[in-house]
Amino acid sequence: MDDILIRNVRPFGGETRDLYILDGRFADSRAGKPAVEIDGSGYVALPGLVEAHTHLDKTLVGMDWFENRVGPTRNERIIADRQAKRELGIDARRQSARQILQTLAFGVLHIRSHVDVDTEIGLANVEGVIETRNAFRDLVDVQVVAFPQSGMLVREGTLDLMEAALKAGADIVGGIDPASIDRNPVRHLDAIFALADRYGKPIDIHLHEPGELGAFCLELIAERTRALSMQGKVMVSHAYCLGMLDAPRQRMLIDMLAAEEIAVMTVGSPSAPALPLRAMREAGIVMASGSDGIQGTWEPWGNGDMLERAKYLAQRNGMTNDVDLAEAARICTFGGAECMALEDYGLSSGCHGDVVLVPARTLAEAVALTPQRRTVIRRGRIMVRDGVPSGKLPNVG
Amino acid sequence: MDDILIRNVRPFGGETRDLYILDGRFADSRAGKPAVEIDGSGYVALPGLVEAHTHLDKTLVGMDWFENRVGPTRNERIIADRQAKRELGIDARRQSARQILQTLAFGVLHIRSHVDVDTEIGLANVEGVIETRNAFRDLVDVQVVAFPQSGMLVREGTLDLMEAALKAGADIVGGIDPASIDRNPVRHLDAIFALADRYGKPIDIHLHEPGELGAFCLELIAERTRALSMQGKVMVSHAYCLGMLDAPRQRMLIDMLAAEEIAVMTVGSPSAPALPLRAMREAGIVMASGSDGIQGTWEPWGNGDMLERAKYLAQRNGMTNDVDLAEAARICTFGGAECMALEDYGLSSGCHGDVVLVPARTLAEAVALTPQRRTVIRRGRIMVRDGVPSGKLPNVG
Ligand SMILES: [Zn+2]
Ligand SMILES: [Zn+2]
Repeated sequence: MDDILIRNVRPFGGETRDLYILDGRFADSRAGKPAVEIDGSGYVALPGLVEAHTHLDKTLVGMDWFENRVGPTRNERIIADRQAKRELGIDARRQSARQILQTLAFGVLHIRSHVDVDTEIGLANVEGVIETRNAFRDLVDVQVVAFPQSGMLVREGTLDLMEAALKAGADIVGGIDPASIDRNPVRHLDAIFALADRYGKPIDIHLHEPGELGAFCLELIAERTRALSMQGKVMVSHAYCLGMLDAPRQRMLIDMLAAEEIAVMTVGSPSAPALPLRAMREAGIVMASGSDGIQGTWEPWGNGDMLERAKYLAQRNGMTNDVDLAEAARICTFGGAECMALEDYGLSSGCHGDVVLVPARTLAEAVALTPQRRTVIRRGRIMVRDGVPSGKLPNVG
Repeated sequence: MDDILIRNVRPFGGETRDLYILDGRFADSRAGKPAVEIDGSGYVALPGLVEAHTHLDKTLVGMDWFENRVGPTRNERIIADRQAKRELGIDARRQSARQILQTLAFGVLHIRSHVDVDTEIGLANVEGVIETRNAFRDLVDVQVVAFPQSGMLVREGTLDLMEAALKAGADIVGGIDPASIDRNPVRHLDAIFALADRYGKPIDIHLHEPGELGAFCLELIAERTRALSMQGKVMVSHAYCLGMLDAPRQRMLIDMLAAEEIAVMTVGSPSAPALPLRAMREAGIVMASGSDGIQGTWEPWGNGDMLERAKYLAQRNGMTNDVDLAEAARICTFGGAECMALEDYGLSSGCHGDVVLVPARTLAEAVALTPQRRTVIRRGRIMVRDGVPSGKLPNVG
């Protein structure tokens, strides 16, 4: 770890100034002569990009091309996904390492990954991702969600495996579509809230349920959040239903989520309902974004760049002016950090010395054009310089 | 122009074979020893990518960052757009040259550009783009649409300017929202169809009109296409209304468009209604795609890569399997070529020797990951090799 002076950058697109990193944290001024000086060239400086929703265990990055013949329903995709895990031999340890190194070059320094737990693969994926997390703990923060992708109640034994996953080091209790997949929303939610309560863990639930079915599930989630005083510890991922209801009903649900401090993660998918981002922000709902699976059996694309994700969010929501683009960038940095309860996050004095320099004239340009030749610094260590990864980074092949 | 042998490529993702280009056209076999041999490495070979809808005269590529403070309505954007043309001094000749050279590196060899005609700038933009077209005619095909961006009937004199644009070399008669912008759909459409009929030119009309208003405009367009026997010569750009109606009404409109051989251009915008692509294809409607404006006052993003556009189309429409991705690629190549009535287009023997080599294992991978280090050949001339533009290309600064 070096003391670093970064001259002439624009923190989050603001006025040009210098940044000092001393002993791995931002400082107000330099102490003596820093070991390393970087000319920031007026670039935009962002705190570490936050990937608040991905599936590290299932990316096919670096593997043979997967010929996708899968139909469009969620159930067909879940079956194809489980089959692929069996037949392609997707090694969660290796694949999570590949994705982390790929996205590190974009400046992604914090990742929340849902990791499959099911009665076929058991804890293998959780153990694989945790192995990578331990090996890479000087490169990136990883939070692991024990995720019942194939259903929990409908696959006897899954709940026990989720508990075992927490004992093995998973940080967060996952959940998925308590009605349309697990066929019993009350029992599903009671079970995961009880588990989270018993282990003192947050909850992050995939909720694709449409329209009023989704709204009902959101109500059940809010009721349990309040009953267990879990305000600030529950995130709903996707929450498509919020984009499928009329404005007065949306408003009721938004107020309810805000009251229980339930966060929402949206990937801004072009083919899924767009969430009412502005009304949600104005109500004080904390929002994060993520790539979801990249290059997997669900979707063939994705690179994990959370600055490009900010662009996707903006594009999906018709946000085109500079102020809107800054808001999209905020969701992919500060918003994600708040959802993940990251400590000492940001570019202020005292925060961890994590910064991403993006060759752009304004924050809006950084989002709109997502330039690639970035410099990435974590805790005062230069990980990537002008798009070139440090020779000291591990090689996972 | 050299005779070229390209070994070991997969035309449109099919079986591996060699391609021969003799005298600027594909041939069945080599004649003697070709001057140039290229190792195709099993890459995917595509015909020249087709940009069927952009605005070459208005991109800000290479200019100062435009701070966008524009509101969300189409009218606010039209006003901001006209103001920017005045205040930023957007030089249509220079800007069209910049965009063409940027997209040539992706393999875009055919471009249809709408070019503003209005009572403030007159024919300046049409003349500027035509100047670039003439200067670059060995690099790329450009079709110019005389486009009344600011309205036609509502701005007295615009129709005369559109006629003057045709005399100055524009190829196609444009139009825009005959109801919501021009306030008189019948008069607007009568005027542009009469102009097209008089000059023997095709029509390409921007139609953002929503729901049943859009449907009514489509009916008016179909009636005039039939009355003037303009089947195969009319394209509707955007046609959002097709994505806003229920399935039986969609079906009626699709059958009507198919009967009159009216083509449809969609950019697959994440924030606009998704068109029923599959039903349209099955009905035999010819479809093309385009970037629309790139890096302009309307939208800050866009790079003009029509292979990335195929990905956008797929993403917007939830098309994720390999067959769907191939269809998206088809729209951005053969579909566009049919809409633009390009002659001798494709990779078959006798076609123009235009080809784009994409470093991907399958066509689906080419679309999903849009690799950048492409080789671009036009009429037997190597324009770009492994992502590096030929030193012989013009430099427009
Ligand atoms: Zn997910
Ligand atoms: Zn347009």
